[in-house]
Amino acid sequence: MSGFAAVDVIRTKRDGGRLSDEQIDWVVDAYTRGEVAEEQMSALAMAIFLRGMDSAEISRWTGAMINSGERLSLSVSRPTVDKHSTGGVGDKITLPLAPLVAACGAAVPQLSGRGLGHTGGTLDKLESIPGWRASLSTAEIQAQLEDVGAVVCAATSGLAPADKKLYALRDVTSTVESIPLIASSIMSKKIAEGASGLVLDVKFGSGAFMKTLDQARSLASTLTSIGVAHGVPTTALLTDMNVPLGRAVGNAVEVAESVEVLRGGGPSDVVALTVALAREMLALAGLDADPAAVLASGEAYETWCRMISAQGGDPSAPLPTPSHVHTVLAPASGVLASLDAYAVGVAAWRLGAGRARKEDPVQAAAGVLCLAKPGDPVTEGEPLLELHTDTPEAVPAALAALEGGFTVAGSAPAPGPIVRETIRGTV
Amino acid sequence: MSGFAAVDVIRTKRDGGRLSDEQIDWVVDAYTRGEVAEEQMSALAMAIFLRGMDSAEISRWTGAMINSGERLSLSVSRPTVDKHSTGGVGDKITLPLAPLVAACGAAVPQLSGRGLGHTGGTLDKLESIPGWRASLSTAEIQAQLEDVGAVVCAATSGLAPADKKLYALRDVTSTVESIPLIASSIMSKKIAEGASGLVLDVKFGSGAFMKTLDQARSLASTLTSIGVAHGVPTTALLTDMNVPLGRAVGNAVEVAESVEVLRGGGPSDVVALTVALAREMLALAGLDADPAAVLASGEAYETWCRMISAQGGDPSAPLPTPSHVHTVLAPASGVLASLDAYAVGVAAWRLGAGRARKEDPVQAAAGVLCLAKPGDPVTEGEPLLELHTDTPEAVPAALAALEGGFTVAGSAPAPGPIVRETIRGTV
Repeated sequence: MSGFAAVDVIRTKRDGGRLSDEQIDWVVDAYTRGEVAEEQMSALAMAIFLRGMDSAEISRWTGAMINSGERLSLSVSRPTVDKHSTGGVGDKITLPLAPLVAACGAAVPQLSGRGLGHTGGTLDKLESIPGWRASLSTAEIQAQLEDVGAVVCAATSGLAPADKKLYALRDVTSTVESIPLIASSIMSKKIAEGASGLVLDVKFGSGAFMKTLDQARSLASTLTSIGVAHGVPTTALLTDMNVPLGRAVGNAVEVAESVEVLRGGGPSDVVALTVALAREMLALAGLDADPAAVLASGEAYETWCRMISAQGGDPSAPLPTPSHVHTVLAPASGVLASLDAYAVGVAAWRLGAGRARKEDPVQAAAGVLCLAKPGDPVTEGEPLLELHTDTPEAVPAALAALEGGFTVAGSAPAPGPIVRETIRGTV
Repeated sequence: MSGFAAVDVIRTKRDGGRLSDEQIDWVVDAYTRGEVAEEQMSALAMAIFLRGMDSAEISRWTGAMINSGERLSLSVSRPTVDKHSTGGVGDKITLPLAPLVAACGAAVPQLSGRGLGHTGGTLDKLESIPGWRASLSTAEIQAQLEDVGAVVCAATSGLAPADKKLYALRDVTSTVESIPLIASSIMSKKIAEGASGLVLDVKFGSGAFMKTLDQARSLASTLTSIGVAHGVPTTALLTDMNVPLGRAVGNAVEVAESVEVLRGGGPSDVVALTVALAREMLALAGLDADPAAVLASGEAYETWCRMISAQGGDPSAPLPTPSHVHTVLAPASGVLASLDAYAVGVAAWRLGAGRARKEDPVQAAAGVLCLAKPGDPVTEGEPLLELHTDTPEAVPAALAALEGGFTVAGSAPAPGPIVRETIRGTV
């Protein structure tokens, strides 16, 4: 597999042509090995951004990224099924979902990431639980899957190294928001992690990567076709991310809200989305269980406690609390007409819940609590938002981010359903 | 001049926007200083390639590249005027032109380059003259301009360093053939070299960078507007490069042909183009002289001899001859109907006249002599082309390059004029 020149591969895509299978295999492998230079891959990424790739190219590109590293092979007696979210504000769904689906009989290996920018990271949230650790060996993952049925942990380093390099490159070269590049990045990681069935939560709206339903639909259909091409049945739910999910946005606050849901309570949108995703995962796993009933029964909460304990965490320990709480009051009486997910996400980030650079630490107790959600009646002067932080000097920046981020009106239409569409790719 | 992020500048162009003056100034300066990384500039170059720049952006970009380094300031009592060719096959015009225009009273500082690929380099050609050296100090350039009126030498290193970096980057990232990037590269060098008037030979055809007259016209009009925007009167001639210029393609062979022209002989197309370019240069210099008469008088040849001697060369020394000559015979009787410039250029390159990589040496004696030109009658078995080389093992590759590169027919239309259009940008 040689004889290609990077300039020829770049030129092909630059001029709007199709990359051949051989060109894709070569360029991804040569980039991983350092033979194709960063500046060459960045020109190619921009050409892909502006010229696109067809679904066969995207699938091959995904395969080449998978082949750049190891593949995790888990041998578990339960049927395994995986979930991935494209990221949003207050998106703690993995926390109740993994134990719920495990309690229904499946094995759920959730290899997760950390937050960057205004969207939070699942590992950051769980690390607010005293003692909990994110790093597990493959043997530990396998044993915990067999025993508990659910694992949420850090991805091991040998999976899809091409994606790791390319992801870092795209970040500094404005080549992030490209559906072929986003989709192949997500799917190469998930398939390298050994997913045998995959449910995707593809979000659209102000707090999501994809701003419109159309963009999200296009990403979702690309994701499902990659899954199908690689023999992985893949279902995508298109879900609304114009408003934060639930009431809690941050780390410990999102754990607390997840526990509420696992105990049969919690905000209705979080419950609805958790159950909807669980149903799709169980369908892919071939399990006939009713997740709503299992959630109500307390079995999912029991699985949660075992999952946290298995990774060194104490599920009954008190969660960290912030040194400082600033309350934002309703400016008028009426109905909360809007609460912008992006504004709330940025506010939580500024308060310390997220990080600006990969190396930064996060504050476990930082975040935003939304005391009212769109459609709720509010009275002038009543608390609307609580800003939690250990660094009170960050409050003005959080308030600036919230400027114009919510409105109170005389009346407001009821919020629509959270799940808008479902795309199923069967193999 | 800070506060910009490279990702924002890249994103602006990626999304089809205009770069502001401040963005252009910042990104070119920061790239020169290494603050903007190679992979970021390469993504930006690809975005410029695919999205374009308007003429104000191109002009500003050119200015920023000029400002990245020194400006050569020559103080000469004669009016100075400069010429640049976009490059072709057999394009030795600088050799007769510079002494001709100098003999007419102007100062012609020709800072030139070396060949890469199938087009030759002026310095490579002159270095076939025993003793001649390309490197001069600024003081030597100035003294020779004052005394002789013409200098052809290597560009000094401090001029437009941003262009130097970007040129090397474009070469490995398939972002070469972009009119905004080509035009700003040419003009930043020429303006940094202190050109006060500029004549451009913009070539189109198989042996040129621009394949069609339309592309060449678009490049020429971009080049002249940059000149005008920077206060440099600029005239562009659109000239045919489908057929090699003259009969000689290589190094020493092109010097020999140039001397023929300077002595009043030589191929008619070389003479015609030399005189046409000289007329435009003299017009910009404000000199009223007839270059055809000066060429015929022998004065231009005298200036040539003084120009070569001033740089250590012996104008009367015999030129190097090849160890091996392979003759290509006419396959049939009739008229030579076509002789493809690109095929001949590649053949000369393979024979050793050009280089594949910057570091490679060239053979002084290598090249191709075209014994017939399109429109000439030929007889089956008569010599058509002479392949000159010191490495006879290169002959098969040269012959392969010539495959289909010429045709003999019963009749053929007479070749058109070499200069097709003239675009004048006055300030």
